[in-house]
Amino acid sequence: MSSKVSIAQNTETTAKLRCISCAANPDSAAQDFRCTACGDLLEFSFPGWSFDPAALKSLWRNRRTSREALDQSGVWRFRELLPHIPNLEEHAITLREGNTPLYSLPRCARVAGVESLRAKHQGMNPTASFKDTGMTFAASAAHHAGLRWVACASTGNTSASMAAYAARGNMHSLVLIPEGKISWGKLSQSLDYGALTCQLRTDFDGCVSILNQLVRQKPVYLLNSVNPYRIEGQKTAAIELMEQLAWEPPDHIIVPGGNLGNSSAIGKALLEMQELKLISRLPKLSIIQAQGANPFYRSVREFGGKRLEPMTADTQATAIRIGNPASWKKALRVLEATGGEVEEVSEVEIAAAKAEIGADGIGCEPASAVTLAGLKKLRQRGFVKRDEAVILILTGHLLKDPDFTIKFHRGDLFAGTAEEAESERAKSLQRAPVELEANLGAVIAALEAAERNS
Amino acid sequence: MSSKVSIAQNTETTAKLRCISCAANPDSAAQDFRCTACGDLLEFSFPGWSFDPAALKSLWRNRRTSREALDQSGVWRFRELLPHIPNLEEHAITLREGNTPLYSLPRCARVAGVESLRAKHQGMNPTASFKDTGMTFAASAAHHAGLRWVACASTGNTSASMAAYAARGNMHSLVLIPEGKISWGKLSQSLDYGALTCQLRTDFDGCVSILNQLVRQKPVYLLNSVNPYRIEGQKTAAIELMEQLAWEPPDHIIVPGGNLGNSSAIGKALLEMQELKLISRLPKLSIIQAQGANPFYRSVREFGGKRLEPMTADTQATAIRIGNPASWKKALRVLEATGGEVEEVSEVEIAAAKAEIGADGIGCEPASAVTLAGLKKLRQRGFVKRDEAVILILTGHLLKDPDFTIKFHRGDLFAGTAEEAESERAKSLQRAPVELEANLGAVIAALEAAERNS
Repeated sequence: MSSKVSIAQNTETTAKLRCISCAANPDSAAQDFRCTACGDLLEFSFPGWSFDPAALKSLWRNRRTSREALDQSGVWRFRELLPHIPNLEEHAITLREGNTPLYSLPRCARVAGVESLRAKHQGMNPTASFKDTGMTFAASAAHHAGLRWVACASTGNTSASMAAYAARGNMHSLVLIPEGKISWGKLSQSLDYGALTCQLRTDFDGCVSILNQLVRQKPVYLLNSVNPYRIEGQKTAAIELMEQLAWEPPDHIIVPGGNLGNSSAIGKALLEMQELKLISRLPKLSIIQAQGANPFYRSVREFGGKRLEPMTADTQATAIRIGNPASWKKALRVLEATGGEVEEVSEVEIAAAKAEIGADGIGCEPASAVTLAGLKKLRQRGFVKRDEAVILILTGHLLKDPDFTIKFHRGDLFAGTAEEAESERAKSLQRAPVELEANLGAVIAALEAAERNS
Repeated sequence: MSSKVSIAQNTETTAKLRCISCAANPDSAAQDFRCTACGDLLEFSFPGWSFDPAALKSLWRNRRTSREALDQSGVWRFRELLPHIPNLEEHAITLREGNTPLYSLPRCARVAGVESLRAKHQGMNPTASFKDTGMTFAASAAHHAGLRWVACASTGNTSASMAAYAARGNMHSLVLIPEGKISWGKLSQSLDYGALTCQLRTDFDGCVSILNQLVRQKPVYLLNSVNPYRIEGQKTAAIELMEQLAWEPPDHIIVPGGNLGNSSAIGKALLEMQELKLISRLPKLSIIQAQGANPFYRSVREFGGKRLEPMTADTQATAIRIGNPASWKKALRVLEATGGEVEEVSEVEIAAAKAEIGADGIGCEPASAVTLAGLKKLRQRGFVKRDEAVILILTGHLLKDPDFTIKFHRGDLFAGTAEEAESERAKSLQRAPVELEANLGAVIAALEAAERNS
């Protein structure tokens, strides 16, 4: 232990809510988690906190041998960097989220032209997406506040996560999803965990709008990513990543950009870890969007980040099919503070990248694959150098959207679309299932054909 | 450390292959992993091994703070109890499998009438089923042996796992699946990970038959559960479970019964842990089958375990849709050694149990839910007492079969089938999605209706 303030004392650091635009410091948040003065988003700040970095690292490492539920969570294990709320831990709802693996991607590294490429796979969380890391903290806050109902609008991953944590905490959950535009896998989760699931005849942004009206009229706790507790929980993915890297930051971290809460959370964690001297330098955090859902890309490239023009989003990467991202200002600040870049990628580039990640034995949902597709472009532009260490953040498991994968390998994904002509590179990655009679000769013939082509 | 033989020395314990029927001790296995003398299955035995139990437990606990890939695996962390093969660790293929959570199931406990009910969720493995724990060890053995091709017949989970590990190890993989009888989610995995996927016009048992012919003719490594390396890897789930329970065995462990490799592996681990004095008594291990795929249940109940009559299997729990289970003799031995029971459950009982597990915030695939359905029957029969501690082994993630879940909650699962009449209990658990116009009033009306019904 060092001579600085002890860890125990610092766990009591009081977090303060702060508006990201007007710097107002409300004592508590309104039900829509917007600043009552200017309407912008709130975030937690930690005025005057300080820790002994070595002691913190040792504490966190030792908790990995603990049998306590909070210590086994990859979120609560790092609770010293989360807002301290009296008695919150007694209300903690945990599914042992976090603890996600860091995988090398040797084939993808060759394709992208970098020497060191790894993926932090947040799809290995309990409900199979990164949303669990924020949800454990925010659902616990809802339980602590005595709420009976929680709610979110979702492209599918948030609703799956919220419904699971609500069920664990004996709360009811309300899910608003856009009709016909989310994957079956994700819908099955919110049904299984007992949510009241409403499919509205609108898009994601339309669902958000109705939900914001609802929480002002009914005692329903908002669990969309504007909820600053969610951002705090999601921060821990970056802390866990740095621990896995022995606190040696990589050169680049690349994140998919949808509603931009995840980019914001990871960036916030990086800045806080630098401030607390847990890491000595900042990785560049870059954000990749799908071309059909690229309002943040256009904001940065066309308007210098001065404003964001909402759009009607359209991409098969449903998890980032968002035209009016709530956290764009937070994400912009992270780009600027870390010196990261923003990029956009096409539907064909996404599908090819997803198959390439699969060939490394790692499955992910389409939205996650924008990271590899974006890396290729950042590498071509020279923003990423061959000898720089790169980490991709994969946000969802392959099983979140099996239809996409099957359609791709069967050659149906781009059939009859504008993308069909440019899908040649993707075609070479397709591995359609072979239907055969049940006899040995047919199987041997298929095996020998594959052998010749490999 | 104690005065007994040091741990290091014991990691060199030589494992021996042994036939489970004629006790032959071949130096190596034939390509189909069958005894060349009598044709029955082989298993690993560890003549003369001994360890200091306290030192082993401490070693395993301390590895949880390690950054080494093998220590971070929930399988390789327990490598002292796996067969020692020179240089195998240099060929290890790991996705950080194991490390799965143990969840309390408070609502399910009330439904089943027991005070302590927990689930060890093997669906939280990297490819979302328990198969990964055996696959890491067996795929590493294939790599160590210099094989370029690995193969399996599968209802879906084995193929997903094998394809992932083969891709990680730069090996080719061949998957034989029954046409039209596996879930889309599982098929998407083997395609994504690059397997040559052949759908044969037969059932699972027909695929097994062709595969057994194939491996005798071609240099293809068999990765079905007759492979004794897979059983060894799967043992670690029971070791990890006992560690989570502070080495205090529960009264009952309940496992789904399909091909019966998993029951065999968990039982083998329990017996070995007792022999090594890692645990002081044996839990009763019980095995639950679906009524439509119950050859083991019938073997035990009708023939006293003397023989097993293969059958044509039919159940919506596709992961255990197996009519001729390879490992039935191993499983029988485990039942007898631990004093466990065998039970069968109906399609409606499976669907209801799956929804009840979901309501506890834990998703699983249908085959996993036979454990809760079976527990209810074992409780009614008095075999399980109210105050006994029970652990369910959940084998696959909810996302392995989202169609089943969606059909269930929409009321389509039993529509027009013989089960429809008896599905009343299940109906009370259904939570169909609600389609609404995109306006606040409609959502508030749905919320208030749910509030009244809750």
